[in-house]
Amino acid sequence: MYLIVVGAGDIGTPLVDLATAGGNEVVVIERDAERAERASRQYDCLVINDDATSKETLQDAGAERADALISTTDQDATNVMVCLLAQELSVPNIVSVVHNPEHMNVFEQIGVNTMQNPQSLIAEYLYRAVSRPSVVDFMHIGEEAEVFEITVGPDAPIAGRTLREADEADLIGGQTLIVAIERDGEGTPITPRGNTRIEADDLLTVYSGQGVTPEVTDVFGSSGDGE
Amino acid sequence: MYLIVVGAGDIGTPLVDLATAGGNEVVVIERDAERAERASRQYDCLVINDDATSKETLQDAGAERADALISTTDQDATNVMVCLLAQELSVPNIVSVVHNPEHMNVFEQIGVNTMQNPQSLIAEYLYRAVSRPSVVDFMHIGEEAEVFEITVGPDAPIAGRTLREADEADLIGGQTLIVAIERDGEGTPITPRGNTRIEADDLLTVYSGQGVTPEVTDVFGSSGDGE
Amino acid sequence: MYLIVVGAGDIGTPLVDLATAGGNEVVVIERDAERAERASRQYDCLVINDDATSKETLQDAGAERADALISTTDQDATNVMVCLLAQELSVPNIVSVVHNPEHMNVFEQIGVNTMQNPQSLIAEYLYRAVSRPSVVDFMHIGEEAEVFEITVGPDAPIAGRTLREADEADLIGGQTLIVAIERDGEGTPITPRGNTRIEADDLLTVYSGQGVTPEVTDVFGSSGDGE
Amino acid sequence: MYLIVVGAGDIGTPLVDLATAGGNEVVVIERDAERAERASRQYDCLVINDDATSKETLQDAGAERADALISTTDQDATNVMVCLLAQELSVPNIVSVVHNPEHMNVFEQIGVNTMQNPQSLIAEYLYRAVSRPSVVDFMHIGEEAEVFEITVGPDAPIAGRTLREADEADLIGGQTLIVAIERDGEGTPITPRGNTRIEADDLLTVYSGQGVTPEVTDVFGSSGDGE
Amino acid sequence: MYLIVVGAGDIGTPLVDLATAGGNEVVVIERDAERAERASRQYDCLVINDDATSKETLQDAGAERADALISTTDQDATNVMVCLLAQELSVPNIVSVVHNPEHMNVFEQIGVNTMQNPQSLIAEYLYRAVSRPSVVDFMHIGEEAEVFEITVGPDAPIAGRTLREADEADLIGGQTLIVAIERDGEGTPITPRGNTRIEADDLLTVYSGQGVTPEVTDVFGSSGDGE
Amino acid sequence: MYLIVVGAGDIGTPLVDLATAGGNEVVVIERDAERAERASRQYDCLVINDDATSKETLQDAGAERADALISTTDQDATNVMVCLLAQELSVPNIVSVVHNPEHMNVFEQIGVNTMQNPQSLIAEYLYRAVSRPSVVDFMHIGEEAEVFEITVGPDAPIAGRTLREADEADLIGGQTLIVAIERDGEGTPITPRGNTRIEADDLLTVYSGQGVTPEVTDVFGSSGDGE
Amino acid sequence: MYLIVVGAGDIGTPLVDLATAGGNEVVVIERDAERAERASRQYDCLVINDDATSKETLQDAGAERADALISTTDQDATNVMVCLLAQELSVPNIVSVVHNPEHMNVFEQIGVNTMQNPQSLIAEYLYRAVSRPSVVDFMHIGEEAEVFEITVGPDAPIAGRTLREADEADLIGGQTLIVAIERDGEGTPITPRGNTRIEADDLLTVYSGQGVTPEVTDVFGSSGDGE
Amino acid sequence: MYLIVVGAGDIGTPLVDLATAGGNEVVVIERDAERAERASRQYDCLVINDDATSKETLQDAGAERADALISTTDQDATNVMVCLLAQELSVPNIVSVVHNPEHMNVFEQIGVNTMQNPQSLIAEYLYRAVSRPSVVDFMHIGEEAEVFEITVGPDAPIAGRTLREADEADLIGGQTLIVAIERDGEGTPITPRGNTRIEADDLLTVYSGQGVTPEVTDVFGSSGDGE
Repeated sequence: MYLIVVGAGDIGTPLVDLATAGGNEVVVIERDAERAERASRQYDCLVINDDATSKETLQDAGAERADALISTTDQDATNVMVCLLAQELSVPNIVSVVHNPEHMNVFEQIGVNTMQNPQSLIAEYLYRAVSRPSVVDFMHIGEEAEVFEITVGPDAPIAGRTLREADEADLIGGQTLIVAIERDGEGTPITPRGNTRIEADDLLTVYSGQGVTPEVTDVFGSSGDGE
Repeated sequence: MYLIVVGAGDIGTPLVDLATAGGNEVVVIERDAERAERASRQYDCLVINDDATSKETLQDAGAERADALISTTDQDATNVMVCLLAQELSVPNIVSVVHNPEHMNVFEQIGVNTMQNPQSLIAEYLYRAVSRPSVVDFMHIGEEAEVFEITVGPDAPIAGRTLREADEADLIGGQTLIVAIERDGEGTPITPRGNTRIEADDLLTVYSGQGVTPEVTDVFGSSGDGE
Repeated sequence: MYLIVVGAGDIGTPLVDLATAGGNEVVVIERDAERAERASRQYDCLVINDDATSKETLQDAGAERADALISTTDQDATNVMVCLLAQELSVPNIVSVVHNPEHMNVFEQIGVNTMQNPQSLIAEYLYRAVSRPSVVDFMHIGEEAEVFEITVGPDAPIAGRTLREADEADLIGGQTLIVAIERDGEGTPITPRGNTRIEADDLLTVYSGQGVTPEVTDVFGSSGDGE
Repeated sequence: MYLIVVGAGDIGTPLVDLATAGGNEVVVIERDAERAERASRQYDCLVINDDATSKETLQDAGAERADALISTTDQDATNVMVCLLAQELSVPNIVSVVHNPEHMNVFEQIGVNTMQNPQSLIAEYLYRAVSRPSVVDFMHIGEEAEVFEITVGPDAPIAGRTLREADEADLIGGQTLIVAIERDGEGTPITPRGNTRIEADDLLTVYSGQGVTPEVTDVFGSSGDGE
Repeated sequence: MYLIVVGAGDIGTPLVDLATAGGNEVVVIERDAERAERASRQYDCLVINDDATSKETLQDAGAERADALISTTDQDATNVMVCLLAQELSVPNIVSVVHNPEHMNVFEQIGVNTMQNPQSLIAEYLYRAVSRPSVVDFMHIGEEAEVFEITVGPDAPIAGRTLREADEADLIGGQTLIVAIERDGEGTPITPRGNTRIEADDLLTVYSGQGVTPEVTDVFGSSGDGE
Repeated sequence: MYLIVVGAGDIGTPLVDLATAGGNEVVVIERDAERAERASRQYDCLVINDDATSKETLQDAGAERADALISTTDQDATNVMVCLLAQELSVPNIVSVVHNPEHMNVFEQIGVNTMQNPQSLIAEYLYRAVSRPSVVDFMHIGEEAEVFEITVGPDAPIAGRTLREADEADLIGGQTLIVAIERDGEGTPITPRGNTRIEADDLLTVYSGQGVTPEVTDVFGSSGDGE
Repeated sequence: MYLIVVGAGDIGTPLVDLATAGGNEVVVIERDAERAERASRQYDCLVINDDATSKETLQDAGAERADALISTTDQDATNVMVCLLAQELSVPNIVSVVHNPEHMNVFEQIGVNTMQNPQSLIAEYLYRAVSRPSVVDFMHIGEEAEVFEITVGPDAPIAGRTLREADEADLIGGQTLIVAIERDGEGTPITPRGNTRIEADDLLTVYSGQGVTPEVTDVFGSSGDGE
Repeated sequence: MYLIVVGAGDIGTPLVDLATAGGNEVVVIERDAERAERASRQYDCLVINDDATSKETLQDAGAERADALISTTDQDATNVMVCLLAQELSVPNIVSVVHNPEHMNVFEQIGVNTMQNPQSLIAEYLYRAVSRPSVVDFMHIGEEAEVFEITVGPDAPIAGRTLREADEADLIGGQTLIVAIERDGEGTPITPRGNTRIEADDLLTVYSGQGVTPEVTDVFGSSGDGE
């Protein structure tokens, strides 16, 4: 893939890291001389130290033959302008970071895919980390449902039972599914079956149709979780 | 929960939003006068416009009776200092954003939970958005496995088949599990069974032991996905 | 007319002057406190000292009931964002200054009327002022034609002749039309007829299908004009 | 023509563009190193990166043999000083931008031609664009009269009539003259005669002794125009 | 005298001091708020904290009835603009500091009296102070002649002689005249006559048609003077 | 003379000009890189771009063998420090500009010659220029007396008379002495004698024991002088 | 004591803390508004927010009746000027911080007591902390001798012996004297006598005529000390 | 010793001076380019111009084989981060400056030796210099005791007596010990014995169990000492 990354800041830098590691041809546009120089030194990519809101710069970056452009600057207005120019240059796939949630519609209106409010995502992780420390990671599915990783507490009701026993004891409702089990820090999860026994300290991947509610997590988590 | 949030910037602001909406008692410490004032105006929380690396400020924020403190400034050194002072003041639950991945160990060493490198997470989302546009959201499970949401393309091999048929046609390997199906934009996903038929435009939540590889996504995604 | 003017700088200020003098209801949005304060003192209008790229600010300015919005900031990216938000808020008539000619298409693409490159217009006036000092003002009509004001030089071929005589002497070609004559500094021009006599120092309004070329101006201007 | 342009900013840059394109010998004086360098790279002209309020700089720019000097800096005081020094060096033709209308007399007093308040001109264009959207361009003639371009609306009273018919129907007063007609986006306007028929979407160049008043424009414009 | 002083900086401040002490009605215009405030506190005068290159400001300062205006800012271009506006407002007596000697002609050309290059004057004093320490003060008369104050050294040839004896000994040439003698630090100088005896440590005021040359000063000064 | 000049600003620059023109060996110390570079380009002297409040810098400038040092920076505190270090390095002749009159004593106390308050001198010249326009230049002698240059007005009482006649008419008091006469713009003044006739437009050098009072100047000046 | 402290920065602040706690009447002069305000809020003293290099400011601070003035700004030139003005105002006791060791002589020359190079002192402490970690504190006496505090290591030769035994074993030379012993973290040291037994972990105050050399410290310190 | 010094500012510079003079292998890390360059020029050490809060920088500085690291930046948060990274890299001896006394615990908590509040130390010296001018230097021993150097005043009670006589006259209490005597500016102190006679101007090193109180110092100091 031929990819143009606009901005080599906090978000652009790991993005360039990922994209070059993935074997793509990457061109970075960064206005700040120092950042541009650093990116150029660190990654195997072409770095253009110029203003990406100029069509000429985008053309120099090869916008005409690019497969995608990702705009990561910290100014929504700059990102909008870059995306509009990229559209004019017919870049087939255009994605942008959006910082102010109010601007989400504007990007949709002009037909640009967006990374939904990254700071909110981080904020939610942080909030979960203090309100439900036993939940390690999570992902929203639709409006209510969630997939989440949870560590089984030593005193958890489910600890020591097989899935079948847990089911029979009505610990797991119909809308809850244990998808995978990580045990003893091994990288490869176990696919659970009816006779798989859940142990304390297991890291479970759980699907819950109701989301991460106390009812659901109480079965797995340590009793100390509060909201 | 009595929660102290340090920093009312890009990450701190949506965090305060979440935390106040969740009915918690929130105190914000922000050094910049303008940001402090804005937070104070927008959210139902106490805002202290001062330097959080001063023990006095943390005490003014009620650190002695706080249930948790989340440090969200954009300087790792500042976050470390705040966390150490919070430990000294016996805040039971301390979480910090970490910007430089090299600093992750330092936070672990002093016993502070961290939000792992938020910008990398965003970068990975952006990268996926252009390299695998059909994958809507995803979550890493252990080293390789992933749970992901994927839109079923109109020409996808699985479109139009029941799960059982898909299984029989060897479309779905042993390490792959379809966890949930969102259809027609309805908020509540369907829990799939053997005779559930997958349709084009369905948004599937899939668990894959191998992660999001072309072998796995080709069954669901549109053929246009490339890397 | 209910009019929102974004920016109270070099262009915004005389615009507010005109718009308030024309009896309109004017709301100004200006980010810089000092400029906002000055505008507020000088003109009979509401001035909002805030960032116009926030939907909230535009709503505060009454965007929902505004007849028109004119964006005059010196950043094209800012103007684009303001215009897109104004569209979202359904402002019926949106006009923007555009500084970089390369960005003209972008504004058209999103359906915003623009003031075409104001600095170029000024540059052309200045250039005419030295290359053809006898031409006082001018306006382009289509690609080549122009209407221009020109002072009749003392030795001009046309000086002292009636229009009919000038026509007979082939001084005025078929594509040239003398539209009006200002004489003796009187504010009201004379509508010329066949027997109107052109005199030195008359200020003529002339239409020329070929534009302001030496062939056309030699008849009117002082011989000293050169390019 | 040997032309010195002082300032390579927003106005100076398109001026240098015009002047070099016109085949003139152009010398630019610009104090800011970055702007000077950009101008030097873009245009075929000599650029002196120095302060134009120094006689030495003007001499280096060849003021003694220059045909004209145009001062375009954004400081009126600087422009005055440059013009006075240019007079001392006997530059025959000196023109300056003037930003503050109050300073217009000062420039006249020292005998310098001026570009009258460029920002006001732009402001007037913008204002017209929203108050009379059907008027495309315009030029003041004396105190009241104007030449203007107007698009004929689909329901305009004049649409579908010949000039003679319009005259007979009293649609066009004695002080109004249709000077030229642009049709179908063709670059060359039609010179109207009595039997020329006006059509919707024609772009007319009109002279009006009363200026652009509703009485005059109602005949041509769409009824939606308001003030 | 009604006097407007523009600028309350290094030169303007002692000027206001002198002018108010002399019983004049003084109005100061100073752009910098802090300086304006300080001047207002220290002197019995009206201080206007505004930009003097605006006609309105000068009118507020009473330019129409002022007897004189002195422009003391450190920008020659600003001083020129202020003086031109003052001329337009018919201030009868206009004086300006000029910093760049090259600009002296420009001020003359527009008919403004100037203080000739103050820094050069100071530089000359400093240079004299080290090259001829015995010369205390001096004033140029025409091109070569000077009046100067010199301290009579203990070993000076003239020490101990009457003027007549000095004359007879050819110590004082025909172009040299001892104008006054200050002795014993008394404020009132002695008018010298033929029998007045010059003593060591006398401070003489001397006129020399040749200026301050070694030939002239050797008679008075200590032998240590060198150049 | 081997001379160190500290500071190449408004005062230092003309000083270096004078000192190099006088054939001295000059070393300049200037902290600002740009100023240092300019001085180095313009004058035949060594320029050290460093901080003069460091003993090392002064030693590099050859303070040990310098005949004199003149400190001209615009900070009195810096000048004091430089002078003290120069004393420590035994520079025989040290002179400094002093900006704040309050600091004059401090310099005297440490035994440094000073240029007395240069801005006050300039202020007095400016003040005289408007309060007594006929007085061209002047020099204080002791507390009251002054030598001054004055242009003889056309209607001056003394115009047309010989010195003897003026004396007999009691126009010149015992404390007034006409020292020299410049006539017709010739550089060499005339030494006046009893029968020398004063003419209108003569530029007289006058000594007055009472200073420049109306009584004294009325005899020479135009009647328009006022205070 | 009536004490003026100039500067409320890193050094001035704890000084004011000490001086006010000691019951003195303290006046602080601080140029920076924010610092001045903070000092005023924190300490029971008068704070003048002004420039201390002005005699007026010092007089406002009561210099005429002050017992002492301490100048703590971070600019040596400023400190010199303040001290000279304080001398002029006859402050009996004047002390200054000196930052550049080269300037030490200058302060001595003008008769001001100085705090000798504070940063060097800190540097030496830090250096000792790594080169001889067992030495807790120290003080130079003359050129070589030192008094120092040292922790007795568990394996130190002196541990477990009385002073007399140590003497007899030639562990302590004639130029070494154990002055005091702190034991068990008690605030009051023991005055050692011949039969006092030194124990591991004792904190000894030792006088050594040779300074802190390995020969001396080996007896007390842990063997791990190296240089 | 292999020593890493972080920061080449006011404290770091003399530290590098000491450490290189002591023959150690020194590596300096300084973020500011100018300071880094100066250190590199002045001292025989390796200087790394980079951010020390990056593990990579510390590794480049050889942290793995360093014997010690001293962090001297003026930001406590930076010093904490540097120390934590140094711990992670197993630097055996880590010392840091601490500016805010409140942060002292934090450094202790993470196990870092600190230089206790250097500015307070300086402040105390300055305060002593004015409150007890006769006390030249001092060192705290435990909570109350002090060792101090004091100059014997001409009228001091102890002047002219032997130690035995002083003891007999009860001038020296049981908690006071005269440790050493410096006389006539000789570098090597005298070890006092019973018959050693104290003379005026002797510089005594005294141990006092009560600290430097008036009771103790009155015996030695000049009577003018007050608090």
